[in-house]
Amino acid sequence: MAQLDSWTDGPTKSAITDFVARVTTAGPDHVEPEARVAVFDNDGTLWCEKPLYIQLDFIVRRLAEKAAAEASLAGQEPYRAAVAGDLSWFGSAITKHYQGDDSGLEVLAGAVLSLHESMRVEDHAALVNAFFATATHPTLGRSYLSCVYLPMVELLRYLEAHDFTCYVVSGGGRDFMRPITASIYGIPPERVVGSAQGLKFDAGNGHGDLLIQPALDVFDDGPEKPVRIWTRVGRRPILSAGNSNGDDEMLMYSGRPGEAALRLAVLHDDAEREFDYTAGAERLLEHADEFGWSVVSMKNDWTQIFA
Amino acid sequence: MAQLDSWTDGPTKSAITDFVARVTTAGPDHVEPEARVAVFDNDGTLWCEKPLYIQLDFIVRRLAEKAAAEASLAGQEPYRAAVAGDLSWFGSAITKHYQGDDSGLEVLAGAVLSLHESMRVEDHAALVNAFFATATHPTLGRSYLSCVYLPMVELLRYLEAHDFTCYVVSGGGRDFMRPITASIYGIPPERVVGSAQGLKFDAGNGHGDLLIQPALDVFDDGPEKPVRIWTRVGRRPILSAGNSNGDDEMLMYSGRPGEAALRLAVLHDDAEREFDYTAGAERLLEHADEFGWSVVSMKNDWTQIFA
Repeated sequence: MAQLDSWTDGPTKSAITDFVARVTTAGPDHVEPEARVAVFDNDGTLWCEKPLYIQLDFIVRRLAEKAAAEASLAGQEPYRAAVAGDLSWFGSAITKHYQGDDSGLEVLAGAVLSLHESMRVEDHAALVNAFFATATHPTLGRSYLSCVYLPMVELLRYLEAHDFTCYVVSGGGRDFMRPITASIYGIPPERVVGSAQGLKFDAGNGHGDLLIQPALDVFDDGPEKPVRIWTRVGRRPILSAGNSNGDDEMLMYSGRPGEAALRLAVLHDDAEREFDYTAGAERLLEHADEFGWSVVSMKNDWTQIFA
Repeated sequence: MAQLDSWTDGPTKSAITDFVARVTTAGPDHVEPEARVAVFDNDGTLWCEKPLYIQLDFIVRRLAEKAAAEASLAGQEPYRAAVAGDLSWFGSAITKHYQGDDSGLEVLAGAVLSLHESMRVEDHAALVNAFFATATHPTLGRSYLSCVYLPMVELLRYLEAHDFTCYVVSGGGRDFMRPITASIYGIPPERVVGSAQGLKFDAGNGHGDLLIQPALDVFDDGPEKPVRIWTRVGRRPILSAGNSNGDDEMLMYSGRPGEAALRLAVLHDDAEREFDYTAGAERLLEHADEFGWSVVSMKNDWTQIFA
């Protein structure tokens, strides 16, 4: 049986084990196995998102490659920032988004959407795999693939051992996560929900491919997360975990009034082992307090953060 | 072990059993279990679609209810046709769509999209369940729930017994199918892909609901089927089954050139036990001939059609 070995004994761990016991044993809170749906945000919830999203590192490298090939781009943002390695430009665009200012994100999105235009989805997956084969975290000194939070992986296995089905539901790119989620989380591509560009079917001689289009199909964040959960799963989760304002609606969507549900807000409060920040999580943490959601303190609830 | 008892011994049944043997045993065509993805159209492939789509009967009843409540609607199409029981108006709108004329479908879609506006997805599911509890097929004299093709259900079980994962991928409504696919096909809601209206998250006091919006989110037909398969599954199918031109791209998307794949085109050629028609399937049947896809003759390949 999977165990929560990296979780400190205390109220948070007990909230998890008590909840799982209640929904898996006979009684008023029992939930049938097929309805034991758990949803997890990715960036900052299952793996590290600072000093910048891991996907942003991939994008910055791809933007720099494009600027190197097309000299006319080098003076424009975000290509200038990518070539200069000015990561603060990118981090600022994202942080401002969570504070209600989308100006930087729009500049970034325009460039990102054209990066892989007309590429086959399989070729894009190969680029992602190549990135993860060598890329390392800029300050933690480890491969991005080992920037996964060990206690959360233990939680995934613990839930599965109790017949839960776990999904990743991320604002990050669906097709950026899919190539690696099976190996790092044990979650297969069909259970990865995320943002995505449009796709177009290209037929030829009895076969066909899907080509990436330069337009956003889904931005899977905030109120869109519950919509995509229903679209993909067709069930309401009974357990959800997130760490930013973009996860707030997903946690509110988990469970019905008066029915058992567990909502976990991961708090980044460990500057020594990971990072210490609440920017972009203000509303989520207020709601955790107001609605009695469980706050997971990385500093106090996790004996170990990385494997 | 699940058997194909209602399939006549012959080339079609052999094509299925030979294909499954090749991809599940060691050799050049072996496919890992997680990649054994099979996709099935619904209307006309898994259950009866004549004299009109089953979902259309549901919609006609809902339109007539709405016209009864709002007298000003009664003179307009499609409400007039719904109240009059003029099913030919609806059938014609659909048939014309598959022949390239969307004029009737647009009138119908406008009315359909407003039918369940602002309804909670769970309340819509309850309406669907209420419909299926009593509705019967107009000519076959059986419940709609037993208008399922027995040989296809046997095929689903046979594939699952060989570690395939089966999905419904239909032009019909995702949330119309989901309440019943587990009981009639053994396919859970998370493996039902279909057309859908937009949804909106409505938050309140720490909880929230998804409300149906009066706009189309996805029309899951033709070239959109491969897009939605990738969106939902993240893998290319190795087996697909359909019966109309709207399934043509899905069959073309199944398998890569030179790799093992099985594509099944269900041919409605049994006027005695079901229906005999090829209208709306012209391109699919041409491609079956051109590309060597297997044609399933309901008359010759199935010893029994319904349970």
